[in-house]
Amino acid sequence: MLKNELLRVVLVGARNPLNIGAVARAMSNFGFERLRVVSRYEVAFREARSAVGASEVLAHAQEYTNLPDAIADCGLVVGTGTVSRRQLRHSVMDLGQGAAIIDKSACKVALIFGSEKRGLSNHDLSYCHWLLRIPTHEMQPSMNLAQAAAVCLYELSRGALNPGLEPSPVEPAAAQDLERITTLLTQVLHSTGYTSDEARTSTEEKIRRFTRRMSLSADDASLLVGMLRHIGRGQR
Amino acid sequence: MLKNELLRVVLVGARNPLNIGAVARAMSNFGFERLRVVSRYEVAFREARSAVGASEVLAHAQEYTNLPDAIADCGLVVGTGTVSRRQLRHSVMDLGQGAAIIDKSACKVALIFGSEKRGLSNHDLSYCHWLLRIPTHEMQPSMNLAQAAAVCLYELSRGALNPGLEPSPVEPAAAQDLERITTLLTQVLHSTGYTSDEARTSTEEKIRRFTRRMSLSADDASLLVGMLRHIGRGQR
Repeated sequence: MLKNELLRVVLVGARNPLNIGAVARAMSNFGFERLRVVSRYEVAFREARSAVGASEVLAHAQEYTNLPDAIADCGLVVGTGTVSRRQLRHSVMDLGQGAAIIDKSACKVALIFGSEKRGLSNHDLSYCHWLLRIPTHEMQPSMNLAQAAAVCLYELSRGALNPGLEPSPVEPAAAQDLERITTLLTQVLHSTGYTSDEARTSTEEKIRRFTRRMSLSADDASLLVGMLRHIGRGQR
Repeated sequence: MLKNELLRVVLVGARNPLNIGAVARAMSNFGFERLRVVSRYEVAFREARSAVGASEVLAHAQEYTNLPDAIADCGLVVGTGTVSRRQLRHSVMDLGQGAAIIDKSACKVALIFGSEKRGLSNHDLSYCHWLLRIPTHEMQPSMNLAQAAAVCLYELSRGALNPGLEPSPVEPAAAQDLERITTLLTQVLHSTGYTSDEARTSTEEKIRRFTRRMSLSADDASLLVGMLRHIGRGQR
């Protein structure tokens, strides 16, 4: 059973203060407390926070300037949104199925929502282990941000009523460890000429995705960091 | 399975045009089409309908001046909202349970939402067969209208939409691919001095275990083989 305090709801680039407020309200409705806002449009967050009747959740929300910092301590990072762009070849879980997996997590879980207009960028998505899809009608798949968040949180709060399996005793690698691996592997590959200068950014995103698909434990991540450091030094 | 065309979403006295629009959008998202608005505040409905991007659902919504007319043709009438006033001693079903009952209905079903501030009046509730309750946190039970509608419609659409969405079939890496990775990684690490000559065998075993724990797909395994070959060549 997911403990409610393990979930971080992360809003990336939300532009409408009313939406930010509504997401915070849905979190209170379903017993979740930890909101993180990646604020490229600072005004929206400030307005939401100062609105009449702003919730406790909003008052305690944390603000970040970028996504990697906002998810650094999370062992499972899940993206949401309409899944049309599949260049990065994420696994996609339907909400019921995905919630059951999140429910069994023993680590901090980030559930990420993109902006109202554009959702999550490919760059944002490259930080995600997998994507959560709300099963919507093919004619109108794109949901309102605050409603999508409410539906996801409703489904996640169900677990509280039906305690599931015991969480696995393996501690997954935190996002910051995976990011270290991404950086080191990109460097090693670049210095051996695997990537050209022009392709470096897109390769880095592919490698980031690759590290998320590996489902590394915290122990294995630090093993791999050690190996990559050594390989990097050997090349100099 | 509830046929989508049997459900009528009935909004009673909604005051905010944005909420009416958001309910209509959630209906489209989950494949429901029939919206009925009991309009004591005519302006809200008219504004919602004339808003930029107003949906098909809203364009075809029917307007009524009172609730009995709006539900006249329905064989099952279900109220929603925070259930605190229990003078009428309705049966109350949790959303999952209630949706299962609605799902088996062969008649037209009205699902009624009250106004943002007050919900449904006792008079409105008196038309309901029973009440549907979204299981919310006791500290903050009252949901935003549009979010409550989205959560109910999500639950009602379960199984009806995209019944055959299979999880994307990922082909796991074959043992021989994992063995190739083990060999290449062992070589790279040995040549950079990560492993001493004496420790080579035990390190290779650790790496073999490590590659099995990664749960690589076939595609990712060949990606990794390519990277390791490249790194190996770069070291020579």
